Amino acid sequence: MRVSYDELQQTLRRALLRVGFEQGRAELCARLFADTDRDGVYTHGLNRFPRFLEQVRRGLVDIHARPELLTAAGALERWDGRRGPGNLGAHDSMRRAVELSRAYGVGCVALKEANHWMRGGSYGWQAAEAGCVGVCWTNTMPNLPPWGATEARLGNNPLVIAVPRPDGHVVLDMAMSQFSYGALAAYRERAERLPVAGGFDREGRLTRDPGAVEDSGRPLPVGFWKGSGLALVLDMTAALLSGGLATHRIPADPVEESGLSQVFLAFDLSTLGGQEAASGMADEIIEHFRQPPPGGDEVRYPGERVLKVRHENTEQGIPVDPEVWEQVRSM
Amino acid sequence: MRVSYDELQQTLRRALLRVGFEQGRAELCARLFADTDRDGVYTHGLNRFPRFLEQVRRGLVDIHARPELLTAAGALERWDGRRGPGNLGAHDSMRRAVELSRAYGVGCVALKEANHWMRGGSYGWQAAEAGCVGVCWTNTMPNLPPWGATEARLGNNPLVIAVPRPDGHVVLDMAMSQFSYGALAAYRERAERLPVAGGFDREGRLTRDPGAVEDSGRPLPVGFWKGSGLALVLDMTAALLSGGLATHRIPADPVEESGLSQVFLAFDLSTLGGQEAASGMADEIIEHFRQPPPGGDEVRYPGERVLKVRHENTEQGIPVDPEVWEQVRSM
Repeated sequence: MRVSYDELQQTLRRALLRVGFEQGRAELCARLFADTDRDGVYTHGLNRFPRFLEQVRRGLVDIHARPELLTAAGALERWDGRRGPGNLGAHDSMRRAVELSRAYGVGCVALKEANHWMRGGSYGWQAAEAGCVGVCWTNTMPNLPPWGATEARLGNNPLVIAVPRPDGHVVLDMAMSQFSYGALAAYRERAERLPVAGGFDREGRLTRDPGAVEDSGRPLPVGFWKGSGLALVLDMTAALLSGGLATHRIPADPVEESGLSQVFLAFDLSTLGGQEAASGMADEIIEHFRQPPPGGDEVRYPGERVLKVRHENTEQGIPVDPEVWEQVRSM
Repeated sequence: MRVSYDELQQTLRRALLRVGFEQGRAELCARLFADTDRDGVYTHGLNRFPRFLEQVRRGLVDIHARPELLTAAGALERWDGRRGPGNLGAHDSMRRAVELSRAYGVGCVALKEANHWMRGGSYGWQAAEAGCVGVCWTNTMPNLPPWGATEARLGNNPLVIAVPRPDGHVVLDMAMSQFSYGALAAYRERAERLPVAGGFDREGRLTRDPGAVEDSGRPLPVGFWKGSGLALVLDMTAALLSGGLATHRIPADPVEESGLSQVFLAFDLSTLGGQEAASGMADEIIEHFRQPPPGGDEVRYPGERVLKVRHENTEQGIPVDPEVWEQVRSM
């Protein structure tokens, strides 16, 4: 089943207005959710919306809270997200980081007491649309065992790096686990094995069986010890720069997960001059990267598939799960 | 064979003076090499020194060149490394990023026309010693096939993230390949298999045989498609911010490799206040992370082993390869 972008966005907006969102914020929040489905990230759009409203109902997300400036140190600012809607807080923060980068070349916002930002890539696209290199990361609840351990003490702490390019921005949006729990479930439901080892089974053996990883709760960090270390320093930097909570203090339950720490960086390329040269170089790098390899698979850059899906979904409508769609329409 | 830190540093310094380094620069350059061995990163210290002098001899490294400011945009600056010694250029750049962070909270130096920075972790330790969160990355010559391709079009583009902590800084220093060529050679020489798949063999099968990966020239990006994407955006951001060369324009030969692009970021935590709280939080995160897991291996944070080795090597002397040691002494 497919619905048009407008219908999706308006339906989400109405649901948000019904629970008390102000007009403008309902508009933006619904747009961020709808953009996520339009771009093919179905785990973090409509399908995540009921859980988001559940968090609003439980008071974990305060729909009226806006980020508040705590400390300004020139190009670096610390803000308190006051547990407002995660995607609005993240969008505000990247907008502010871009503003700071106009003045200082680089701008950084560290946000504490944030909520789940849903699709991290959104804020990378946002920076790139503004002509900036954008970098952001968030911590999460504990959901990933460090390398060498069996219990989840790390978050999968998604990292986003975006590079503006006239012919299509390059946007990397990667969590620190090789597969998200959402991806594991999708493979299991299709009765497929994972393309590479995705974690350990209960006996501590690396496995490509998605159900065995869900069962053990031991997904694999990207690059084994390397992703484990990277997840740790992303958590530390987010908590220390924002003055907020680190992963081990965040409730380990997807509905209770709240009070996250996030960092948003923007670099305004135009402050350095030579934008045409920069665009030319970006194109040249991507062109070289994408050359079809002899006998190999297709080589795709991060964000390339998004543009294709965005185009398809804009033309043909956005695929929705009929049950979730009915549920949200009646919310 | 072990030699004292002072003997190592003085020997390197004399060799540098003999090829024409100025006094102060010979001192610092030798210290950066000696620190690397002292900290146990034997691939990038003394053992790399003959190749470094070979680059000097060939004119790829200009020993008199110092970085030159090209554009200043407040907290973001673009510098030209003028193909000076890589470790000196990187050290200067991180020092400048720290200076900028004192004034703006965050500081960023993008450096073009740099040379191999040797051990990237050095500049992370440098930032952490200055009380800053430090982040830096460099591109390299092509040495890593993108996910889906067979030929090396990406660099392994090391990324360094350092977090200051009174009881021992946390310093992540990771290249985007699961194993460096140096690590592959070390496993092969010890006739050991890799602990996890390290790349493809000539038939395109994932393998734990280090020699087969050396032979195919197809090491594995960390996290497969994820590290491939991360290596790409690190190259793009380094080239675009510095206005310098991207990986595909850098000669694919370890001795000819020159003209790299690098980014150095420092965040001065003291500009945000609450340093004691930050130190307390850093300790708490590490304490929680390191808890011995039931039945699992030891869990170590990035940088932990360095401190142990540093202590041992300072007490007992630094292990050196007798042949390389004699070679450098007579240089």
